[in-house]
Amino acid sequence: MPKPEKHVFICTQMRPMGHPRGSCSEKGCTPVAEEFWYQMQERNLFGRFAVTSTGCIGPCGVGPNVLVYPEGVMYSGVSKEDVAAIIEEHLLGDTPVERLKAPADVWG
Amino acid sequence: MPKPEKHVFICTQMRPMGHPRGSCSEKGCTPVAEEFWYQMQERNLFGRFAVTSTGCIGPCGVGPNVLVYPEGVMYSGVSKEDVAAIIEEHLLGDTPVERLKAPADVWG
Repeated sequence: MPKPEKHVFICTQMRPMGHPRGSCSEKGCTPVAEEFWYQMQERNLFGRFAVTSTGCIGPCGVGPNVLVYPEGVMYSGVSKEDVAAIIEEHLLGDTPVERLKAPADVWG
Repeated sequence: MPKPEKHVFICTQMRPMGHPRGSCSEKGCTPVAEEFWYQMQERNLFGRFAVTSTGCIGPCGVGPNVLVYPEGVMYSGVSKEDVAAIIEEHLLGDTPVERLKAPADVWG
């Protein structure tokens, strides 16, 4: 593949139920990841952008977390319904979605 | 955590033995990932740089693959012995390691 214009990393870390850190899996990352893959395919965007699942990227307490490079923008509390905005505004429009950004104290 | 100066993504994708795409796991990514975590800890660098394991990042045939953002530099065929060079030259020295870069036809 060519080097992508932007690369979306979706935390899909799992931890046992009751683990003190929780996890993005527990917080619902799976429907978010599925929605990204579905919409990227539907919009035929895999030639321009990459989407990759990851282990822990840090702020477990505010997950599900999605990190977009090269900007290094961390989105937290992402739901399936937010995916279209990230694709349309950030990936295609080159303008990060301010309302979804992680708090500055966890990624500042 | 603060936003890292650089973020190292290590593919740790597994596939069944004999799968036509192979995988970074089959090609030896585990010792590479362990060496990154060990050296980052030893050098006390986790405050500046992040290291994250990932699912597939693309060029399975030339793995183990390691991708560094924000530059978007893909390293392929990485071995445990290459980790120190990536940390010293790229992370600390801000100069990507040319000899380890993935071929341009897989990440160009």
